[in-house]
Parts: sequence; C-alpha cells; structure tokens
Amino acid sequence: MSLPLGKADAATTIAPQRTLRFGQIGYGYWGPLMLRNLAKQKNAEVALLADLSEKRLADAQSTYPGLPVTQNPADVLNSSAIDAVYIATPLATHFELAHQALAAGKHVLVEKPLTDNAANARTLIALAEAKGLILMAGHTFEYSPEVEYLRKLYTSGELGRTYYINSSRLNLGLFRRDADVMWDLAPHDFSMINFILGMAPVAVSARGAACVHDGLIDVAYIDLKYPDGIIAHVHVSWLNPNKERRFTIVGDRRMVSYDDTAGNEKIKVYDRGVDRPDYASTFGEFQLSYRYGEIVIPFVKGEEPLSVECQHFAEAIRSGQPPRSNGTVGLHVVQTLEAAHQSIAQGGVYVATQFD
Amino acid sequence: MSLPLGKADAATTIAPQRTLRFGQIGYGYWGPLMLRNLAKQKNAEVALLADLSEKRLADAQSTYPGLPVTQNPADVLNSSAIDAVYIATPLATHFELAHQALAAGKHVLVEKPLTDNAANARTLIALAEAKGLILMAGHTFEYSPEVEYLRKLYTSGELGRTYYINSSRLNLGLFRRDADVMWDLAPHDFSMINFILGMAPVAVSARGAACVHDGLIDVAYIDLKYPDGIIAHVHVSWLNPNKERRFTIVGDRRMVSYDDTAGNEKIKVYDRGVDRPDYASTFGEFQLSYRYGEIVIPFVKGEEPLSVECQHFAEAIRSGQPPRSNGTVGLHVVQTLEAAHQSIAQGGVYVATQFD
Amino acid sequence: MSLPLGKADAATTIAPQRTLRFGQIGYGYWGPLMLRNLAKQKNAEVALLADLSEKRLADAQSTYPGLPVTQNPADVLNSSAIDAVYIATPLATHFELAHQALAAGKHVLVEKPLTDNAANARTLIALAEAKGLILMAGHTFEYSPEVEYLRKLYTSGELGRTYYINSSRLNLGLFRRDADVMWDLAPHDFSMINFILGMAPVAVSARGAACVHDGLIDVAYIDLKYPDGIIAHVHVSWLNPNKERRFTIVGDRRMVSYDDTAGNEKIKVYDRGVDRPDYASTFGEFQLSYRYGEIVIPFVKGEEPLSVECQHFAEAIRSGQPPRSNGTVGLHVVQTLEAAHQSIAQGGVYVATQFD
Amino acid sequence: MSLPLGKADAATTIAPQRTLRFGQIGYGYWGPLMLRNLAKQKNAEVALLADLSEKRLADAQSTYPGLPVTQNPADVLNSSAIDAVYIATPLATHFELAHQALAAGKHVLVEKPLTDNAANARTLIALAEAKGLILMAGHTFEYSPEVEYLRKLYTSGELGRTYYINSSRLNLGLFRRDADVMWDLAPHDFSMINFILGMAPVAVSARGAACVHDGLIDVAYIDLKYPDGIIAHVHVSWLNPNKERRFTIVGDRRMVSYDDTAGNEKIKVYDRGVDRPDYASTFGEFQLSYRYGEIVIPFVKGEEPLSVECQHFAEAIRSGQPPRSNGTVGLHVVQTLEAAHQSIAQGGVYVATQFD
Repeated sequence: MSLPLGKADAATTIAPQRTLRFGQIGYGYWGPLMLRNLAKQKNAEVALLADLSEKRLADAQSTYPGLPVTQNPADVLNSSAIDAVYIATPLATHFELAHQALAAGKHVLVEKPLTDNAANARTLIALAEAKGLILMAGHTFEYSPEVEYLRKLYTSGELGRTYYINSSRLNLGLFRRDADVMWDLAPHDFSMINFILGMAPVAVSARGAACVHDGLIDVAYIDLKYPDGIIAHVHVSWLNPNKERRFTIVGDRRMVSYDDTAGNEKIKVYDRGVDRPDYASTFGEFQLSYRYGEIVIPFVKGEEPLSVECQHFAEAIRSGQPPRSNGTVGLHVVQTLEAAHQSIAQGGVYVATQFD
Repeated sequence: MSLPLGKADAATTIAPQRTLRFGQIGYGYWGPLMLRNLAKQKNAEVALLADLSEKRLADAQSTYPGLPVTQNPADVLNSSAIDAVYIATPLATHFELAHQALAAGKHVLVEKPLTDNAANARTLIALAEAKGLILMAGHTFEYSPEVEYLRKLYTSGELGRTYYINSSRLNLGLFRRDADVMWDLAPHDFSMINFILGMAPVAVSARGAACVHDGLIDVAYIDLKYPDGIIAHVHVSWLNPNKERRFTIVGDRRMVSYDDTAGNEKIKVYDRGVDRPDYASTFGEFQLSYRYGEIVIPFVKGEEPLSVECQHFAEAIRSGQPPRSNGTVGLHVVQTLEAAHQSIAQGGVYVATQFD
Repeated sequence: MSLPLGKADAATTIAPQRTLRFGQIGYGYWGPLMLRNLAKQKNAEVALLADLSEKRLADAQSTYPGLPVTQNPADVLNSSAIDAVYIATPLATHFELAHQALAAGKHVLVEKPLTDNAANARTLIALAEAKGLILMAGHTFEYSPEVEYLRKLYTSGELGRTYYINSSRLNLGLFRRDADVMWDLAPHDFSMINFILGMAPVAVSARGAACVHDGLIDVAYIDLKYPDGIIAHVHVSWLNPNKERRFTIVGDRRMVSYDDTAGNEKIKVYDRGVDRPDYASTFGEFQLSYRYGEIVIPFVKGEEPLSVECQHFAEAIRSGQPPRSNGTVGLHVVQTLEAAHQSIAQGGVYVATQFD
Repeated sequence: MSLPLGKADAATTIAPQRTLRFGQIGYGYWGPLMLRNLAKQKNAEVALLADLSEKRLADAQSTYPGLPVTQNPADVLNSSAIDAVYIATPLATHFELAHQALAAGKHVLVEKPLTDNAANARTLIALAEAKGLILMAGHTFEYSPEVEYLRKLYTSGELGRTYYINSSRLNLGLFRRDADVMWDLAPHDFSMINFILGMAPVAVSARGAACVHDGLIDVAYIDLKYPDGIIAHVHVSWLNPNKERRFTIVGDRRMVSYDDTAGNEKIKVYDRGVDRPDYASTFGEFQLSYRYGEIVIPFVKGEEPLSVECQHFAEAIRSGQPPRSNGTVGLHVVQTLEAAHQSIAQGGVYVATQFD
C-alpha cells in the first residue's frame, strides 16, 4: 500500500499483470466504504487518498496504517503513478475534479449522481471518449445481486406485461448540505429502474416540499413515464420515522417486491396476476379473475454491491469495455433529476426528458 | 325483526323509547357487514332489506331467519314503517336512492363516496336540511379508534408542526365495476386526513393509470395541499401483490405511523423530530440535530368502526345533531375526487378545490 | 331453526335427506363459534342450546332470534328430537355429559380435551362403540387447511428424514378456571403433531410453573419422543406479552415453519437441509454442507377449521365412518397430558405413555 | 502496529501512558472480529497474531498490512513484549493456552466458554489470583447495550416480581467441530440471564438430540431454576431454518421482549401484567385482571459489544479491578453446561449446580 515511485505507464495501457493504482478523493460518508473495497481488489492498491480534513485522513490512517494521504486533491490528479481516480466529494465538485482527472489521463469513477447538471455530464462523456478513458458513475445498486435478480426476472418475461414500478427510499436523515433529497436519494431509484427495464424515462412529473429548510426539498414524489406505457413512482424522503426501502414491480403474470431491509427475505415473487377477461357480455360486465398463487423467496447469494462495483471498474479499465454504469447511464439519471426539478417548478406537469 | 304493521310516527320525531326502524338497500360487499351492526343496535331493528338479487336475499335470510326482504328498493323507500335508510348500492345509484329516501322523509346513511358528483351531493345536503333529516356519509374510518387516536394526537400538538401525511391503500383487487380505484379506495384516505386535520384540501394533483381495463384507473397517486402548508400524498392501487394500509404523519417533534394490518401494534409514535438549526454560520452550513428517541405503541381499545358508525347514526337521528361525517364532509371528499380526475386529465397540474 | 315436534328416528339411522338436529351444551368461549358453524351446515339445524347462564342464552338469542334455549342441559340429553350433541362445557363435566348423551343414543362431539382422564376417555370410547355412535373430539387444528398442508408435506417425504418439531402457543391469558395451561392449550399442539406424523408419542417429559396461582400451572415446556427417533417440543404459556403460534418441522431435506399469526404467509417451506458428510478423514473432521435454497410460501386456500370440523362431524354421523379426531385420537391427547403431569411431579423425567 | 523490540515492563504494572500490547491466538470465526476491536483501542496495539493456518494469517495481513504474525502460538506466550493475550481457539485448547499465558505473567481474555470443564476453570481462577492477573471470559452479550438495558430494567423493579425468562438462539449452522450446540450457543444465554438476574442457577434440567452426527447434540432444551423461584428456559439449535434470537422476561407488572434480529426495535417493554386477585369468593373463583397497556420501544444507543468488551478488558488490566465477566462468572457458565449434560445423561432430571 505504499506509493510507487517509478514512472507510470500510460494510463490507458495497463499490462495484465501490472498493479492497478487507485487514487481516491473524498473520505466522508461513502469514502471509507469504497476505500475498503478498492483496497481489497486483487492486483491493485490505493496509492493516495485526498481529503480536505486532516481529521478524516487521520481516521483513515488509523484503520489503514501506512496509507499515503494528502490534503491537496491536486496531488492525486497530478500523480503520474495513479491510473484511476475515485471521486467521493460533494456534488458541486464532481465535474471539476472528474474533468481534471480525465484531462490528466486517468480513468474516473464518480460517486452518484455523476454531475450536478446534464451539460457537464456531456462534457465529461466527450472528454473520456476523446481520451479513450473509462468514465463510470457510482450507481451502487446496479451492482447489487438483488437488483441483478430483478433485471433477469424482468427480461425473462416471467412477470408478463409490466404495468408499473413503485419505489420508496425513506430515511430519518441523513440531511446533506450539498444536495436536496432528490439529488441525494433518487439516483438510486432512477438507476435501478433504468437498469432493470433497460430504458430511460421519456417524461417526468414531480412534487416536493422543503419542510425543514427553505429551498431545500426534503420529501419528494416523482412519476416517470417509460416507453411501452410502463410507469414508475418514486418516493424519497429525509423525514420518515424509519428507514424504508421498498420496491415493487407489478406485472400481469407475476408481481415482485424487494425490501432491502428484510434480511434474508428481501425479494418475494408473487405468482399473482390479473387475467384480462373477454368483453362478450352484452352488459359489458367483466369478471376479473385473479390468479392467487404461491410466493417464492428466491435464494440470492449475498455480495457487497460496492465490492462488485470496484471489481467492475477495474475490469473495465483493463479491458477497455464501457462499464455498466457508464457516462451515458449516469447522464440519464442527471437528466431525469433536472426534469423532476423543472416539473416541480412548473406545478407538477410532465416534463419530457431529452435524451440524445 | 318482523316488519311493524302500524303506522309510523313522522320520521323526524322519534320518541326516546321508540324502536328505530332501519331499512337497508343493497347486500353486496358492505351490506352484510352493516346489516349485522344495524341489527345489534339497542332499541332498533332492521325492518326491511332490499336487493335486486334473489340469491343475495336468500343468503341474508340464512343468517337472519325471518328477516323481511324485497327485491324492490321502492318498498323500502315507500314503507311508512321505516325511519332511516342505509344505502349500500353501486355508486351511480347513490344519488337517486338517497334523494328519494330524503324526499320520503327518511334519514339517510349512504355508503362512501356520498355521490358520484359534487352537484348531486349539494342537492342532497339542501334537501336534508330543508326537511330536517340526517344525511350521513359512510366514512368508516372516521369511526375507528385508531383514527380517533391520531386525531387526538394531532390536535394535542404533540407532533409539533405537521409537515406531511403519507397514506397508501393497496390491494390485489377487489376490482369494482361501478367505480375506478380512486372512487373506490381514496375516500377512506381523504376522509381520514380531513378528519384528523380538521381541514379540507385546497388543491389536488393526481396521476393514474388504467393498466387492466382501458379507461378504468386501477393505480393512482394523489397529492393534496392543505392550509398551513401541510401536504399529503395518497397512493391507491388494485394491483399490489399484498394488502397494504400504511399511514404516516410527520411532524417536527414527533412522527406517527399507523399500519392497519399490524395486529395489536397498529400505531407507533416516534419521539423523533428535527430541530431547525440557526443560520449564524458565515458559511451557511447547518447542523441538523435529530432527536432519536423511544417509540411508543399506545394501547388503543379495539372497537369495530362500523358498530360505532351505526350507533353514531342512531344517536344523530334521535338527537337531531349533525353527524361527524355529515353531508358537507361527504361533499368535500367528492369534490376532492373530482379535482383529482381533473388533474389527471390536465397532465397532473394542481387543481384548486372549490369548497363553499 | 324451530324445535321439531315429531318423534325422531333412531339416532343411529339417519336418512340421507333428513335434517340433522344438533343440540349444544355450553355457550362460553367456544360455544358461539361452534353454534354459528353448526347452524350453517346444510340439511341440519341447531334444535336446542343449553347453558346454565340466562345471560349467555339471551346473548345467543339476540344473534339468533327464535333459537330454542334452556338452562337445563338434561333437556338436550332427553330430547328425542336431537340426533347429536356438541359439548362445550368446563372440562370437569365433559365425561358426565358425554356419557349421558351416548347413553341416550346421541352422537357426540366434545370440545378438546376429550375428558380429564384417560380412564373416562376409554369408557366413552367403549360406550360409543357398543351403541354404534360417533364419538369425536374437538381437535380444531386437525381440520385447518394449513395443518392439512403440513401433513401432506410430511407424508410426501419432501422434508426428507424428520429430525424434530417445535411448537409454541403463547398468550396473555385467557386464564381458565377449569384447567391449567397444559390442559387448555397443549391439546392443540399434541393433536396437530400426532395428526401430521400419524403417530402418538411414546414418552413425555415436562416442566412447568404455577406463577400466578399456587397449583395452577400457567407456563409449561413439554418434550415428546415419537417412534423413529423423532422428537417434539411444546411450549405453552398464559403469560406471554403477545400471542405467538409458531410451529416448525425440521427435516434433513427441507424445513417448514407455520406461524398462525402471519396473515397470508403462514407457511414457509425452506429448501434448506443438511447433508451428512462421510467420515473418511483420519482426523474425524467433517464438513457439513448446508443446502441454502429458496423459500416457498404455498398458497393455502383459507377455510375456517370449525366449519370443516362441523361438516366432518355431520358426514361421520351420516356415513357411520369414524371421524378423523375420533375417541381414540382424543384419548391419546389425554394420555399425553396425564404423562406430562406425571413427569412434572417426578422432576421432569421421561414418562412412557401407555397406549393400547 | 510493529512488534516492540525493547524489554517489557512486568505485565502486572502498566504505566497509564504505556501502550498496551495484545497478543492474539486464533483467527477463525471470532478472531477477525476481535482483532479489529483490539486494534482500535486507544493506547494499545496488537503486537502478534498466531494461527496454525498460514492461509488465515495471510488473510489477516491483507486487511492489516504489516501485522506481525506467527504459526507458533508459543511465540505469543513467550514474548516478553506482550502484556495480554486474547485466546480464540477451539474449546479443547482454551485451558492449556490460558494456563500457559497466565503462567507467563500475561492477562488473559478467553473466548466463551472459558474452559471445557469446571475443574480447569477453577485452576485458571486460582492461578490468575495467585499471580495478580486479569482472567476474563468472552461473554460478549454482557457488553451489549441491549442486555445492559435489560439488566437495569430488571434491577429497577419495574418488571415487578419476575416469573420466568425464555431464550431461544437458533441457527442454520454454524456447526462446529470442537463443541456441541450447548457449548457453542448456550453460554450466551446463560451469561445473559445470570448477568441480568445477578444470580446463577441452582438446578438444571436438559434434553437434547444429536440429529446429524451421532453423539454431537445439535438441538437442546434447557431449564434453569434460579433462587427466588425464577425459572428460565433456553432453546438452542443448529438446525433451524432461520436465525432466531428471542429473549423474554415475564414479570407480574411488566414484560419485556428482546429480539436481536429486529433492527432498531430490538427491545419492547409491555405494560402488561397480571393482578393476582383476592380469594374472598366462597366458590374459590377468581377473576384475573390483565392490565393491557402501551408498549414502549426504548431508544438504546447502538454500540458494538465486542468493542465495549475490549475496552473493558483494557480497563481491567490498567485498573486491576476484576472485569464483569471474570473467571468466576465464566466458571458458572461452565458448571451450568456440565449440569445440563449430566441431566441429559440422566433422562432430563434436575441436576443441582454446585457453585462454591
């Protein structure tokens, strides 16, 4: 875990056996979780950690004695010994740091959301492409085994025709200073839904309230329209008495619920659906037949999403293949957030997203 | 339980000791539940039950041998021996039947929602007032001990300033033929929230989808704005894998959840809140202090809401006092439903309610 | 529901179309539940209800106007118009009343436990046999769809080799005056386990405590040894803060849990088991391989056990076939209760049951 | 975290500012959990880790680069630079290793249970006392905030007279090779109950079964008699479909449940009790009055028990004060385990414990 002294190869060509050297900027909430996972990647090391706070750096070193640290993020960006940078700083700084890192020839993994506006995200995407570098958004849940299971279930067609998705992500806190509750929590829901459906929403409607601080939305309700008539509803809040992570996909053949707080029984697949009856009757009456059936709680092997995400980042760097949560995937989430804010400003109307 | 033969007193003057004679029209889903409760009122009897279906009437008589029944609702409306009528028929018939009953000098309890449009509700209110009769909407939950508890908690001020209310009422079915999911389920939520807050909403925004049948909304999300900046969100669905009845009130001093499916632990009062920090810091930073604290599950003595509701109806008739869920209270719910539909038609914008 | 006036046929020969006439003695806790179910049997009626309490009888008549009642149980026993008697009285009176009813030529259903000692149970069995009458114990759970499901699962072999069964039945109250917690609650567990396994226990060990009243056991732990090395443990209590009904069968291929308080998800079948490893290693080490797998919550169609039980009683009377919970099945439960008390008196040693 | 080279002070006199140097033997299941906590103690360090397995040591070093390790436990015991030893090895080796460590003048923390027989535990206690060293058993739950809360609740008298305690600790696995399920799991329950009540049991009765491996008990039911008529029941199993950690204390004024798997709602205090009625009635009847009341879920600040335990060990070493789970406390658990085994061998009779 010491800082390599020799000159680095060009960041874009990393020999299979060469140790991958990560730099990390930011050691707040996500930082420690990610550092642990970056550190345990095979044939890789964390070469330098930057944080503005001396106290945070001391904390990191108490867990990882000998870890090279700095209070100057530029040290990470300028080090020729670093191949890739993980950025876990306040949202407003994502773009600037990621841009500098890419400009310096480093692969970049940015904590979600990718940037605080779509234009900046597009700039990063273009730069990464121009320089042949990996740009990845930290959409953690795209790397969780449960969400992976949901995606497979959806794509298998077992749910039948999908009607709608419902997702709630409620906390008591953690209040952030750099983003409102939508920018803080909803990227998880948006990225999960997009990943499962393999689509991005075409229109967004939202309502929100700033209960505690004027101007800082702390509870929001967001409706998304997807192609094929699928709709989704996302409820995020920093003001709920307990933690809630509930996700439901309703299909006409099966329904599935995913409760991330439910220990070993997170996913339940309901063999329940609704048969659409014929309309032969002169009275236009209908008899809906519900197929009640068994519920299956599949065995999903536990894996830490951050660990999978780190490995995926490393593999993308070595292979040059775009990662699952690449820049464009990150952009879609940012665009959806922008549309949600626009909808709130316009009294809740649906705002079309403009994905190109 | 036999049909009295003698001539009735004027319906509006019922001597304290005189047996109150109920007629009931409709014996579908709610009918049997209510008949049992009307029948067990003290000093009262169900004098006649009407339903179009012979089979339903036979079913009623198998449970209540000797119960007078008829396939002609007019028999109930025309009987001089009947003081009060309970109407549990499809929504489209509420107005006509209630209007005839009031015109015939009978007190009326109509299953919720009161009518299928606000104009009709106003007509009923005016007629009842003109004739000095009781008009009551079957807002069951206003008579539940748990909702009573929530109202007391709210009015006591213990919650502090109330930020928002969240309510979800999800089923797998029961699909109705006479109303969509909003007219079927949301009256419960609207009446509960109005009752607890002692206010009606000033604006409504809604989004819904007709998943199974074209034109029949089976999932909806409704946002309500109340005076004092309180907001509420209601989610209703006929397409959820399991039954869900969750209600949360978020205040700045306490939060309370009410899960109607949670056996003996329906209500939880969280001593959690958010202290609004000062803004003295030059950097505009804030430190939110959450007061985590104990959770209290109050002991709420169980009582069947329908039983309380029946008793309340009988008392209103004898006392002449307007019932809790009187015509105007029923009208507010109908107006909110109308506004919700208007909002859906207008792409989710907030529609002002026009209560007079 | 009126009392037939004509002379009855011999109780033991009931023509297929003839109405079956039930008498009921006792209208306490179980009485009302059973009366409702007896009353709704097809081609049957409750001809007379006896209870010592005038108040209880008035209560019955308020629900069932016109129901013939009496404060003298002998009226039921002596009525030639009654074919079969349901006895729901305090335990100490079971034997005397059942004996008289059988002696009077009536089929008998006795609330569990059948009698308060094994000798009396044997006397009833012999008398019923001599007179060609049905004697049935009110082992409700043998008629529940969930327990039926468990029996089928067990007999199908899907659980593999069954290791043990664990059952807890805990209340806050209801304290009884006529029996301790073992005689009150454990008959449910014993009859369920015997029914599922198709066996009766060969030895019983128990420990109990009389916390509130000297001499009246209100919490007990009972261990049962069955043939084939299967063991079972039963925990009953009147002193638990909440109601608990948990039942687990542990097999080497699958495990199944049954929580009677869990709404629509009462039964869970776990595809988990333990593979017994070989012992080839010189060090005697073993590697146990657990097969973690999915959990299935089967769809078990709800049915009220008491309704099934009543129907089963009626069918047994008409067909002359011994019922599922016949006298001998009832005797086994009584013998197990006697052995449990003997074990407590002897400091918890295993006491052999003596089934003949 | 490097190995000090200088000569150590006498282990029994540690200057306040001097760094405490721990050695650890064993890096299996508990080892990593404890190493992390020992390492983060203030003014302390882990000077040497021993494990027979090279692979385990490599694993430790991947997490703690630079950690001194050895495959020879004697290196820990012989190092003059080590003040205190934590032993997390198979049960059969506890005594020998602890004895050598004490003989070498080192303070000792032994993972629970302290030893595999009472005689050995007594020998360790005597040796520690003779040498003025700390001997501590790793009774983790005595250091958990929830158990601390239960102890305070019990000693406050708020529960009223305590009737009984019920504890179940069920897993699917983890099977051990060095101990049966009683030696593996029951020490937690025994130490919790003893700690809460401030008493050790006077008699023990047990029943168990060896389902998977002949001679290795994998499910057991243990009854404990305490002074003052309090009883306790402990159920441990390696063969349950899911993890269960349920603990209930039943008092005549209040009851409390503690479910260690219940997230933020682990403890519930029920304001329920049983009022013992007078016996004035000539009929000896009694009317038990249950006081149903509210349930309180207290806010218990989360703390990792192992962290508290490590700190407690360090403080005991520095202060010379006997730790909470000292040798005698550890001995009581071992004696109870021995009595339980004796009871099983004797068919479940109560076996008196012989604490001196």
